[in-house]
Amino acid sequence: MATRPDPVAPADAQARAIARDLLSLGHAALAYADAATGLPAISRIAFGRAPDGTPMTLISALAPHVAGLQAQPACALMLGEPGEKGDPLTHPRLMIRATARFIAPDDPARPALRDHWLAHHPKSKLYIDFADFSFVLFTPQESLLNAGFARAYRLTAQDLAA
Amino acid sequence: MATRPDPVAPADAQARAIARDLLSLGHAALAYADAATGLPAISRIAFGRAPDGTPMTLISALAPHVAGLQAQPACALMLGEPGEKGDPLTHPRLMIRATARFIAPDDPARPALRDHWLAHHPKSKLYIDFADFSFVLFTPQESLLNAGFARAYRLTAQDLAA
Repeated sequence: MATRPDPVAPADAQARAIARDLLSLGHAALAYADAATGLPAISRIAFGRAPDGTPMTLISALAPHVAGLQAQPACALMLGEPGEKGDPLTHPRLMIRATARFIAPDDPARPALRDHWLAHHPKSKLYIDFADFSFVLFTPQESLLNAGFARAYRLTAQDLAA
Repeated sequence: MATRPDPVAPADAQARAIARDLLSLGHAALAYADAATGLPAISRIAFGRAPDGTPMTLISALAPHVAGLQAQPACALMLGEPGEKGDPLTHPRLMIRATARFIAPDDPARPALRDHWLAHHPKSKLYIDFADFSFVLFTPQESLLNAGFARAYRLTAQDLAA
């Protein structure tokens, strides 16, 4: 097969704007390593951002990805909804490779995360303080915005926080 | 933390019907192991089924998940779209742990797969025969339907094919 040029470009203002929209979604797909087998596994998670913009979630210990992320914090998130019309592969999606960090119940950072999460996910007040629910922060390592065929952009942590 | 009963039930007729609807979607999220690092990675893929019901996709060799699936065929798919209303975690989604198998251009099974794929993805005729596009079959190993909080079902390969 002939060598082709790198199809991934650095982010520009438009790419950052699309990424910002995707980061405002309330849910994401999470790829993680299964705790028992180490093999790829996938779940839907609630999605939000910390006050400093760091991607985060609130999860129940009953979810299989909790054991997975505790055993192997490296994971990947995907944000974006194809919608009903057109080719789903032309709709933008943001993929973030990240490292998960659980926030302990007594972590001094928790009250600010809790207030911020509640402001954006008001229905979570029903379970946010249950003993088996935890906040998890996702520190981005590498991000790729795919905005349609042959339109891919690499985003830095600064691009994501913008 | 107190032990709770297994929250996952065997599939019933309603669970199979929900799974069938989700399997008719044209796209999925794919969790795979990155070829270089082995760490979890994620992509959106086109989704369809072979004539015998086996989940499948059509992918370009340029996609990063191609090298990943070639190095490590174990992967996981998620089907389901949250839609715009309500809590995204109450909308059903189907998670399938699977093993990927690439179909060679000269595989005798390819023509039937190609016809079937084209019938359901007519726009793919623009690229279906490009040299860098391949069909990949996903043999299901284990499937879980999450139909909302506390409504999870385990599906067998027979349930999926129904």
